[in-house]
Amino acid sequence: MKSITGPDSVRIFDTTLRDGEQSPGATMGTNQKLEVARALARLGVDIIEAGFPAASPDDLLAVKSIAQEIGNAEPASGHDTPPIICGLARAARGDIDRVLEAVAPAAHPRVHTFIATSPIHREYKLRMTEDQVLEKVRSMVAYARERCEDVEFSAEDAGRTEFDFLCQVVEAAIESGASTINIPDTVGYTMPSEFGKIIAGLKENVRGIDKAILSVHCHNDLGLATANTLAGLQAGARQAEVTINGIGERAGNTALEEVVMAIQTRGNFFELSTGIDARHISRTSKLVSTVSGMLVQPNKAIVGDNAFAHEAGIHQDGVLKHQETYEIMKPESVGVAQSLLVLGKHSGRHGFASRLSELGYNLSDEALSKAFEQFKDLADRKKTITNADLVALVTSEMAQPEEIFSLAGLQVACGSMGMPTATVRLVGPNGTAYERAAIGTGPVDAAFKAIDDIVGTHCDLLEYVVQAVTEGIDALGEVSVRIGNGHSESTRVNPQNEITGRPTFHGHGTDTDIIVASAKAYLAAVNKLIAVSGADHPTDPRHEKGMRPTPKPMSA
Amino acid sequence: MKSITGPDSVRIFDTTLRDGEQSPGATMGTNQKLEVARALARLGVDIIEAGFPAASPDDLLAVKSIAQEIGNAEPASGHDTPPIICGLARAARGDIDRVLEAVAPAAHPRVHTFIATSPIHREYKLRMTEDQVLEKVRSMVAYARERCEDVEFSAEDAGRTEFDFLCQVVEAAIESGASTINIPDTVGYTMPSEFGKIIAGLKENVRGIDKAILSVHCHNDLGLATANTLAGLQAGARQAEVTINGIGERAGNTALEEVVMAIQTRGNFFELSTGIDARHISRTSKLVSTVSGMLVQPNKAIVGDNAFAHEAGIHQDGVLKHQETYEIMKPESVGVAQSLLVLGKHSGRHGFASRLSELGYNLSDEALSKAFEQFKDLADRKKTITNADLVALVTSEMAQPEEIFSLAGLQVACGSMGMPTATVRLVGPNGTAYERAAIGTGPVDAAFKAIDDIVGTHCDLLEYVVQAVTEGIDALGEVSVRIGNGHSESTRVNPQNEITGRPTFHGHGTDTDIIVASAKAYLAAVNKLIAVSGADHPTDPRHEKGMRPTPKPMSA
Repeated sequence: MKSITGPDSVRIFDTTLRDGEQSPGATMGTNQKLEVARALARLGVDIIEAGFPAASPDDLLAVKSIAQEIGNAEPASGHDTPPIICGLARAARGDIDRVLEAVAPAAHPRVHTFIATSPIHREYKLRMTEDQVLEKVRSMVAYARERCEDVEFSAEDAGRTEFDFLCQVVEAAIESGASTINIPDTVGYTMPSEFGKIIAGLKENVRGIDKAILSVHCHNDLGLATANTLAGLQAGARQAEVTINGIGERAGNTALEEVVMAIQTRGNFFELSTGIDARHISRTSKLVSTVSGMLVQPNKAIVGDNAFAHEAGIHQDGVLKHQETYEIMKPESVGVAQSLLVLGKHSGRHGFASRLSELGYNLSDEALSKAFEQFKDLADRKKTITNADLVALVTSEMAQPEEIFSLAGLQVACGSMGMPTATVRLVGPNGTAYERAAIGTGPVDAAFKAIDDIVGTHCDLLEYVVQAVTEGIDALGEVSVRIGNGHSESTRVNPQNEITGRPTFHGHGTDTDIIVASAKAYLAAVNKLIAVSGADHPTDPRHEKGMRPTPKPMSA
Repeated sequence: MKSITGPDSVRIFDTTLRDGEQSPGATMGTNQKLEVARALARLGVDIIEAGFPAASPDDLLAVKSIAQEIGNAEPASGHDTPPIICGLARAARGDIDRVLEAVAPAAHPRVHTFIATSPIHREYKLRMTEDQVLEKVRSMVAYARERCEDVEFSAEDAGRTEFDFLCQVVEAAIESGASTINIPDTVGYTMPSEFGKIIAGLKENVRGIDKAILSVHCHNDLGLATANTLAGLQAGARQAEVTINGIGERAGNTALEEVVMAIQTRGNFFELSTGIDARHISRTSKLVSTVSGMLVQPNKAIVGDNAFAHEAGIHQDGVLKHQETYEIMKPESVGVAQSLLVLGKHSGRHGFASRLSELGYNLSDEALSKAFEQFKDLADRKKTITNADLVALVTSEMAQPEEIFSLAGLQVACGSMGMPTATVRLVGPNGTAYERAAIGTGPVDAAFKAIDDIVGTHCDLLEYVVQAVTEGIDALGEVSVRIGNGHSESTRVNPQNEITGRPTFHGHGTDTDIIVASAKAYLAAVNKLIAVSGADHPTDPRHEKGMRPTPKPMSA
């Protein structure tokens, strides 16, 4: 792996935790963001955009924690320094101040500020003239540059901006001290040839362009994010802004794995390199999918379950006569685990720990003990534990928020005769146990209602997905839920459309019994909701154990 | 909508039922293929590749049924004829004969024959010299052309074929009578600029190239299928081979919706048109996802749940100041249903039928009665029935195979105390009822084991996914399962790698109780397996009602 300072080195700027996390339902807590940031650093990304600190105090805190820990960690293999930690700011002093505060603890902090430059955004969103925009660029980039050495500037909706005006904006930003200039195709509108021309044109026409690194940031609304990003790099950009699995608002951002593997697989074509250790791609993809609740479709390039022809689950009588006839990458190159059968119920703690370490998870003693306990519990119920099961156990554990209420027991009766009933026992913040039974339209509904009834929440279930982790009829089930709370206050600002959104919360649970997994996932989401809502919302149970529940309408 | 005969008209060649159906687990029965073909015709595709008739007698029959019905249907709006029905054949008389037989009933039949042309395929797969390949192209295209007016030829792995040899191959195919020449990037290896150059080079260098339509067929291994397809069209290709949702082997094929919407959204850039009525895209996507069991990720371009910013589930306090600031397409343009609240338990059959018709489903009287019955049953359990619920009900019904065993009752007890137990009652082919109880690692496992025990199957569960259809804690759950049978005979040949695969079977079930939905889905898959396995496999129950089950190992 080359260092990222050569003329052919592409800096990988990961915005999974900022633009990715902005997508509906991908909201993460601070611990989850830290876990993802650790994985990104291990993967070898050069810059981590850790969040938009002005969105909320929690967002600021999360960026600060990442700056402290990951911004000062041991450099990943092939790197000389820990990753740069970056925060996003609108072109406003308040936003920039918050970023400065949040990224300060990092060894290499960066402020990333932006303003929209396209006519439609100037007219309808900003209500500003070209000159006003230029003045804002100059003053805010200079303000940031006086306080931080590393300043990135983005011309939002650059893809739809008049080229001449874009040149003026870029020139102003460089003159004012920005050392990275990002050109986003914010709405996923441009074609690769157009986007390449914009980058090449900027290289040719902007005075002082050599003082800055050009960056590209593409969206996938027409399925062209990867092609546009690669076209930008070919035309001279040397930073790519990407997310794991291509998550992000609407159709998402450019997928890190696609750009990195295109550059690697087509080495002679691009003559570029990145500092990414691709063998961590598969694992990082799974972590982000679990933590964000954003599923990866089986036919997703590089990281989908079907991406490699001979992946588990595909039975074939023969073997391909020559692997490369239908395969341009080897699954091992992105860390797709090939060995399936791993451990059984008689495996010890040592074998368990060393297998996890082989899979790239080095847990603390406490986390290892908890994971081992869950492993033994699973091994009692499932004959063979595969790598996929282990990854699910560990990532599920990493994805868990602080437990305010914990699930102490669940009992369900259901079926086609109707009247599905669930009895739930929770242990609350004060150590008290609460029990409640509820009838629902199905066992999951019944269990969720019983939890709502104990906790006193009124949640909207926005998403509910179950997947089997591995093959086999005794497979571990992974449940993802996303909930909202119609009554909660607006707490979080979207940096682009400036809409103050009602937050939604994602929860994740794993068990061989999918009703138990569902209850765990829902409770995890409810715990996040309670933690975020704080004192404004009912966090104390309304009923003591054994009390009759007060009547509630059937549907939340 | 223009007719597709102008110089700027792009023919949309849909291969969802051939290349899409080849992807692991997407196997469909004849009725399901017919349903998809009907939807494709309504969408306005120009050519339907209905299958690979030489794969198995069932595959031939499915192509024939599609040729009969859809190949002679009323032309879709904007079209003068029903779609061309096409079948795939290796460059071999036996394969071509089977295609001829299968597509014959269509008003406009097409034979599509192919041979690999790249050095790696010639050496390791075909073990043929360049001259031998050329001779095969000449003789087999001529053989097909003598028997069918419309012949398409594909140079497999054209993307990695020496350009000069590719020119010779294409010239030979045209001389021998092929009127469509398809250039596939079989392994998803080329970059858009390279792929565009191949197409432009062929236009320039091949004698007689104007006598044929050039076609492009791209794979998404590096996330570039759409970009490559568009580059090919810009360079002069006038047929695009695509699948709904981009399904297909490995990372899949080019997604129809992305190519069509790029051409439509960027009309001035491409100056091309297609005969697709984009308002049917969303509905067709949902049908294919349900029938194939291939999930669509939320951040999928055009058809993902998050693709449009203001889709259901995204709560926002404000409204965008101007819709186009962040949206380059309107959700209505691809038929994303905007109205959510539709029907309740007091809605009558007439209102139900007319709403289905608005959604584009015109059911037969019998199918309508069955759907209405399910609707009333659902309305008893769920307060409000949304368009999404209706689509799920109807597509689920369409996706059902012939019932050999039907679910007459299910009763489940489970929870964190362990010993999940399911009691299942099935009615078998002879009208007899069978009951069996089983213990599993979870309630789903227990229900599947009880079904296995009655039917006498030994299935491998390869995939298990549940999704909530709509928001709300009382949502309808949609379960997809995919099973294989380690003991079944190999029955189906893959046209490309010539591997005879063990078939896998997908089943689909919908219910507010996800355990009931799971049992329905599993039984649907088992019914398909029994139907395909035929007399070679135990289709008769081993136990009469009330008999003690024979001991079985815990895991299938």
